[in-house]
Amino acid sequence: MRTYKKKNFPVAKIRCFLEPGPVVLVSSAFKGERNIMTMGWHMMMGFSPALVGCFIWDQNHSFWLIRRSKQCVINVPTFDMVSTVIGVGNCSGSDTDKFEKFGLTPVAASKVAAPLIAECYASFECKLVDTSLINRYSLFVFEVVKAHVASSPRYPTTVHYRGDGVFMVSGRSVNYRSRFKRVNL
Amino acid sequence: MRTYKKKNFPVAKIRCFLEPGPVVLVSSAFKGERNIMTMGWHMMMGFSPALVGCFIWDQNHSFWLIRRSKQCVINVPTFDMVSTVIGVGNCSGSDTDKFEKFGLTPVAASKVAAPLIAECYASFECKLVDTSLINRYSLFVFEVVKAHVASSPRYPTTVHYRGDGVFMVSGRSVNYRSRFKRVNL
Repeated sequence: MRTYKKKNFPVAKIRCFLEPGPVVLVSSAFKGERNIMTMGWHMMMGFSPALVGCFIWDQNHSFWLIRRSKQCVINVPTFDMVSTVIGVGNCSGSDTDKFEKFGLTPVAASKVAAPLIAECYASFECKLVDTSLINRYSLFVFEVVKAHVASSPRYPTTVHYRGDGVFMVSGRSVNYRSRFKRVNL
Repeated sequence: MRTYKKKNFPVAKIRCFLEPGPVVLVSSAFKGERNIMTMGWHMMMGFSPALVGCFIWDQNHSFWLIRRSKQCVINVPTFDMVSTVIGVGNCSGSDTDKFEKFGLTPVAASKVAAPLIAECYASFECKLVDTSLINRYSLFVFEVVKAHVASSPRYPTTVHYRGDGVFMVSGRSVNYRSRFKRVNL
């Protein structure tokens, strides 16, 4: 798999990559253990601070790594990685090092202990800022504290999960900027 | 604009249409007033009950209609409606009847007072089940109590917002069911 050369990116603009709804790979680390999970249920919850809400089931091995470390990295994979996305989602970190198993390259993050995934188009370093909704809704509220995004292509071809094993592949982008009021962009 | 003939659809399976991350049109009604807003920040939060989290800013005219009525309908528009999606998001219900202005057809829902939008591919009748996160996060937690989905095409061509006036158009669907463990589908 190719790796992406990523640059620092303004955290207030990460909605560009998360709001369209791609499946993401969430990497985590705690006390010498590391893991990756596939995640489809997430949403933007603010620009600045850049808040992202994530549904993480307590049966996921990553649940405790993220809850205890209070950190993770949200990585955006592209369609060429779809086999990896499926593989990561169909085995458990309890008995597998997923970086090794899937040939993914961990890269040190700058503000969290969880590693970035070099093969992903974008990686968002996250700190858990609200634990109060975890028990009720499995909802983790993260603040993205640093963003790394590939400078090319401008938009990644992402995968979006429909359930039942079916993925939608992102299509073309169309610019309608002139039809928006500036405040609504 | 065309209208879709929609059928009753199992609420536990609506993730098929929301998890890919489309922009949706949220219709509401309260005390003789009705409105529509464009919404991009939402996520699945459960299958059964079918919970959907929605970020609704308190500056939206719909905010109070939905908060007071405790109901709404989440409608999924298709790419042929993109001009309507943009128009609805760039005017205010405080001085406009958006159904009239955009030639949209309200259809009576069965379990809520808010109308379905006939021109949308799918419509999900929602009841507000948790108001406790509205002040802190503008987060409305809805339960989908009835779902109406067009029987054709199988998957709609949806629009996904990137910010800055740019939309991603959903592309092809690919089935990888055989590579999943059954429990993970």
